[in-house]
Amino acid sequence: MEQYSVRFLPDNLTVQVPAETSILSAAGKAGIVIKSGCGGKGSCGACQVVLMSGEVKVEGTGKLSHEQIEAGVHLACKTKVMGDLSVEVPPESRLQEHQVLTGSIKGLLSEKEVNLLQKYGLKPLARKIQFSLAEPTLTENTADWAKLYLELKKHLGEGKIDVPLSVVRDLPEVLRAGKWQVTVTVADLPERSEVIKVEPGQSTTPAYGLAIDIGTTTVVVYLVNLESGEIIDKQGTYNKQARYGDDVISRIVFSVDAPGNLEEIQGAVVNTVNELVDSICRKHKVQREDIAGAVAAGNTTMTQLFLGVSPKYVRLEPYIPTFSYVPPVTAGELGLHMNPRGPVIMFPSVASYVGGDIVSGVLVTDMANADELVLFIDIGTNGEIVLGNRDWLVSCACSAGPCFEGGGITFGMRAMPGAIERVDIDPHTYDVELKVVGGRKPVGICGSGLVDCLAKLREAGIIDRAGNFQKDIESHRIRQTEEDKEFVLAWAHQAEGEKDIVISENDVKNLIRAKGAIYAGIRSLLRMVSLEVEMIDKIVIAGGFGNYLNVPDAVQIGLLPDLPSERYEFIGNSSVKGAHLALLSRQARVEAVELGKKMTYLELSVGNDFMDEFVSALFLPHTDLSLFPSVDS
Amino acid sequence: MEQYSVRFLPDNLTVQVPAETSILSAAGKAGIVIKSGCGGKGSCGACQVVLMSGEVKVEGTGKLSHEQIEAGVHLACKTKVMGDLSVEVPPESRLQEHQVLTGSIKGLLSEKEVNLLQKYGLKPLARKIQFSLAEPTLTENTADWAKLYLELKKHLGEGKIDVPLSVVRDLPEVLRAGKWQVTVTVADLPERSEVIKVEPGQSTTPAYGLAIDIGTTTVVVYLVNLESGEIIDKQGTYNKQARYGDDVISRIVFSVDAPGNLEEIQGAVVNTVNELVDSICRKHKVQREDIAGAVAAGNTTMTQLFLGVSPKYVRLEPYIPTFSYVPPVTAGELGLHMNPRGPVIMFPSVASYVGGDIVSGVLVTDMANADELVLFIDIGTNGEIVLGNRDWLVSCACSAGPCFEGGGITFGMRAMPGAIERVDIDPHTYDVELKVVGGRKPVGICGSGLVDCLAKLREAGIIDRAGNFQKDIESHRIRQTEEDKEFVLAWAHQAEGEKDIVISENDVKNLIRAKGAIYAGIRSLLRMVSLEVEMIDKIVIAGGFGNYLNVPDAVQIGLLPDLPSERYEFIGNSSVKGAHLALLSRQARVEAVELGKKMTYLELSVGNDFMDEFVSALFLPHTDLSLFPSVDS
Repeated sequence: MEQYSVRFLPDNLTVQVPAETSILSAAGKAGIVIKSGCGGKGSCGACQVVLMSGEVKVEGTGKLSHEQIEAGVHLACKTKVMGDLSVEVPPESRLQEHQVLTGSIKGLLSEKEVNLLQKYGLKPLARKIQFSLAEPTLTENTADWAKLYLELKKHLGEGKIDVPLSVVRDLPEVLRAGKWQVTVTVADLPERSEVIKVEPGQSTTPAYGLAIDIGTTTVVVYLVNLESGEIIDKQGTYNKQARYGDDVISRIVFSVDAPGNLEEIQGAVVNTVNELVDSICRKHKVQREDIAGAVAAGNTTMTQLFLGVSPKYVRLEPYIPTFSYVPPVTAGELGLHMNPRGPVIMFPSVASYVGGDIVSGVLVTDMANADELVLFIDIGTNGEIVLGNRDWLVSCACSAGPCFEGGGITFGMRAMPGAIERVDIDPHTYDVELKVVGGRKPVGICGSGLVDCLAKLREAGIIDRAGNFQKDIESHRIRQTEEDKEFVLAWAHQAEGEKDIVISENDVKNLIRAKGAIYAGIRSLLRMVSLEVEMIDKIVIAGGFGNYLNVPDAVQIGLLPDLPSERYEFIGNSSVKGAHLALLSRQARVEAVELGKKMTYLELSVGNDFMDEFVSALFLPHTDLSLFPSVDS
Repeated sequence: MEQYSVRFLPDNLTVQVPAETSILSAAGKAGIVIKSGCGGKGSCGACQVVLMSGEVKVEGTGKLSHEQIEAGVHLACKTKVMGDLSVEVPPESRLQEHQVLTGSIKGLLSEKEVNLLQKYGLKPLARKIQFSLAEPTLTENTADWAKLYLELKKHLGEGKIDVPLSVVRDLPEVLRAGKWQVTVTVADLPERSEVIKVEPGQSTTPAYGLAIDIGTTTVVVYLVNLESGEIIDKQGTYNKQARYGDDVISRIVFSVDAPGNLEEIQGAVVNTVNELVDSICRKHKVQREDIAGAVAAGNTTMTQLFLGVSPKYVRLEPYIPTFSYVPPVTAGELGLHMNPRGPVIMFPSVASYVGGDIVSGVLVTDMANADELVLFIDIGTNGEIVLGNRDWLVSCACSAGPCFEGGGITFGMRAMPGAIERVDIDPHTYDVELKVVGGRKPVGICGSGLVDCLAKLREAGIIDRAGNFQKDIESHRIRQTEEDKEFVLAWAHQAEGEKDIVISENDVKNLIRAKGAIYAGIRSLLRMVSLEVEMIDKIVIAGGFGNYLNVPDAVQIGLLPDLPSERYEFIGNSSVKGAHLALLSRQARVEAVELGKKMTYLELSVGNDFMDEFVSALFLPHTDLSLFPSVDS
């Protein structure tokens, strides 16, 4: 058959192909991988190339517009070589490391995340590669796996390629069923690739991945198209481990209490993830087998429990986790509802109380590459703080307790419909105005509402700087119960629960302890590196809480440093966002491991510094008012 | 505490250690790994060092002789540093790559194997390493695995270290139970190390390994001490797959015949290996968990069945195996009775009918490094032939059939007690003299006996060159039955089975076809590379058969080339010997993979060359008598 030469631009690579070869195949021969979401059916429109010169046969134009066709745009899969050609492959048609992100993925990520992903480059944890292999003969009798291996090597370059026995077992029938066309799902693991699935012919579904945040309270799962980077769906729910206790300590206690408990509590969190995955898969008609990899982040205890590793020593002095970094495990080992051979990568921990969720958050802040001094605070069931820049990173954890997630507060609740998120108190009439999530009748009060409430109680003079209710105020909203004093935020008839919603003096004291612990943690880190509060260039707040927080109120009560609002940034659930980033980018996965090593941990229980800072912070805003110049005392 | 400097010779490395440190620990600090089989108890005597100068405290001398003590020899584990020292560590006390083999292992290996092992160096598939880790504190709070990893890195150098989840799960309790002393079993895999076991304190048992030959008929297992290289025991038995057929083809047919058959036939061979392992472990009181790795060799079908990979396409033209090289699998995946995390390495195959057993044999012959031209023949249920030298290796398989293992022959049997192994026939009286394995009454006739018998029948003129019985001979030993002619080798009263032991004309024809196939294979390989029989410098015969074979008789019938006896060498079961070598030496494992790639396969069913050669070889010794100048025609 007639041979023609096809020159690809701007690469300036030329290959010889027989007449009627598709431009897509010719590009493959030249080592240029063109995107082909639909597997060469002409329907996805991803494989657009520009014909510069030469004769072709056009067998389909798919969704190409009239203007595109006029401009010489062709679908590489549906255009056959009929003479010597010159073809330009634009960057957006290439599947490569530094792929320009498509509009669809941009829409779902913040600008910051898009920038990070562009910087790190798209190299997902798993991808599908399609090949046509030569049919064997008596003289060309290479073994099935050896033949596939040689082709894979061409695509993956140097480096080890592993294949599990279960894939080897499938291989002969798959190759023959596909008439030597095969789609191979390959995972990109540290220092090696692993084949995790083979399918006959050209698979039309992409490889999917999971980004998982394993919170002590809430678990969030993203299903991600690893080819486009797009988030197909996000779902979250309560961690089923909650029945063994609200905080990590009670979970640890349960897990070591009796034989079998560790397996039970591991099963609970795996089930939580699985139900979310099942729900997303059903909704989007995605097969479990096509979910080829997962990246998960959680605090150290959550990470160990997820892997079935006893967190016993996390709780016992000197608080030693079993691992910081752990090599990837397979989904099958954990019982996750995805391809059992798919890798599950855990973000590394720094210490027993600064875990992978914080490393993931730090990755999203990009503070490890910042020139300026950045303070990262993640307020969840615990409060973790990281301070630093490109040269160093220090971290600590303060037992803030679950106040800001609603725990230990009479009417505390999480930020969901019915939660009071903003409070205004008239300093003269003591009348109250509330803003409730979802605009419904109030049920309770969430973290941001509590911060607001504390600030406004102080502003109205209802409580003093130590959090004591003032006796000389006359208002039917302030009342003495048998055990405590309280302030009524909403009357029973206004509320959903038909009970007065109140905040008690005890609640106020709990909140002061919690905010004091966080502020004392910030001060301890600063003291460790001999820096002052005002030297912080940027404060990044993470955690569900962060999305709603009113900065001036948080400063008012002494929870956050007294710095201009423009230095504050909120990034929401940075744990799952970092997992998403790592799922899509090899460089981000490498960086995560490096971050785990780079971050120094300050154990606050050593020495008296923290305790001194804590005691000083048990006032509104602080005993040292010079730290809060903007607050009227 | 006082610090002293210890200088190690001939390395000239100096370390500072506190008083009372053992020389063993000091050496470890210097990165010099001294052998310590008993784990520092002073009982094994492996850690001998020579004190050149300085003050020490001797706490034990174990089995050291008076002369040794006089000469300054000390046990490194039982000698404490009490001043600045200078210590020589002789090569035999070092656990290192190019370790000199001990007497015990020499006794169990042939000189050739010892030479090969010394050339490749001792770097076993797995070994135990002992550490003392620093107890963690609030300020030195490294995670358990991170701490162990850093120590392992010191011992193992660059390269990836993996750890399975199950070991991570054990780690915290093991470290604390051993008071931060730990023994780690590490497997040496291609391009990475893997931790497969952690034990508290200093383990006193070595790591063991299995060398396995999976023959179609017989399975052989060696249990090997991976520290000393010593073979603890060897046991062999019939492959339990025999109930599904005698040859590979019938096994393949069974395995693809019905769902579940593949698992059943895989289970049969795994059970065969397991029963041998169990028997050896019971006898030598070895724990399964301490068997840390295995290397197995078998033909391509046996290898695929052992791994549960269907050999369907091995049998169908164009005879494509599923894999040649396959990455190591774990014992747990196969259900082998050893540490489930231990790696099982299979010798690579060359083609569907030249398998890992042949690659293993070629490794033992070292022909891939030979200047001279070597011919390797393994005659088992099939006949595989390899020809070559350091520059090239060609191989083929000839369907010799199971004759030489006793199959398809009226009184055929394997070479075991009761088998006739030598036959003499008086050319005048036709009286017969037999040599029987074990000196017992004859039961049947084995391969070497059949070769002998054929040569002597011809010599006595009882058969012609085509194998036809001569009609004009008068002897009561020669008789006509209903279907056939036969010659009586032993009368019923002389035999174990109380039946006349005979060889029939049909047996003779079968044998001629078998020997013809092998000789035709040799000639086809020679023709492929345009060489002549007399250019072969050395012929290496492997297979159980090889041990008893009488070369002049084999030449007489045209089974083997007519070359001087001194060019022949017998190496027995080279498949298990190669597995033993690979178990002990990383270089041998690397070489095995390279061999698999280097060997070219000649498919004899392509073209007419083989068929022509085969037809020419269906005479005693051959149609072309010029090929057999030493044979009287």
